[in-house]
Amino acid sequence: MNRETGNRLDPKFDSAGLITAVVTDVADGAVLMLAHMNADALARTLDTGEATFWSRSRQRLWKKGESSGNVLRVVEARVDCDQDAVWLRCEPAGPACHTGARSCFYRRIEGEMLMREE
Amino acid sequence: MNRETGNRLDPKFDSAGLITAVVTDVADGAVLMLAHMNADALARTLDTGEATFWSRSRQRLWKKGESSGNVLRVVEARVDCDQDAVWLRCEPAGPACHTGARSCFYRRIEGEMLMREE
Repeated sequence: MNRETGNRLDPKFDSAGLITAVVTDVADGAVLMLAHMNADALARTLDTGEATFWSRSRQRLWKKGESSGNVLRVVEARVDCDQDAVWLRCEPAGPACHTGARSCFYRRIEGEMLMREE
Repeated sequence: MNRETGNRLDPKFDSAGLITAVVTDVADGAVLMLAHMNADALARTLDTGEATFWSRSRQRLWKKGESSGNVLRVVEARVDCDQDAVWLRCEPAGPACHTGARSCFYRRIEGEMLMREE
């Protein structure tokens, strides 16, 4: 089955067994965070409707909000043309960033400088 | 300078020298595509205001739209907390996907199936 034109989910995991996941807020399209998923994380995300990732630093499954309570409820999941990335449109229960910011992308790039702008 | 709290751009390139870039349409927040950038691609993107990536398959710089004309004009660039990803809010000159779809994410995941839905 062709990955680009087919109608079956057939993720193309990289050499580390991962795909990239981008999370947006379904309310306004803001990009909240970017993380990685192995096959298990993707399956749990789709099964439970709550975003679950693979933590590369901790080398374990990581349900977003498991400690903070700031879970991401998945309203819609999409996959890209070559199936190595997923887009999750979510309802966030709270700030998505571990810094407490709503989004991990809280700084705008201006030349070599970063401007905080949430 | 701390990458999370600092006000200087200090990208954290991975072992292959890359960061991840997510492109959204500034008009409605739709995720158009996801690609990778090396230091040169990031610099050119910021200097020219047109999204330029590193093609992992072709191992060369790749200005989006260089052959199709479907350039992505960068309205705003943001960086995430650990500076290993950038978010580009763009005005697309045409379809972002090489398949001709507006977005690479033209299929919704429903269980094991994919539903085409542009």
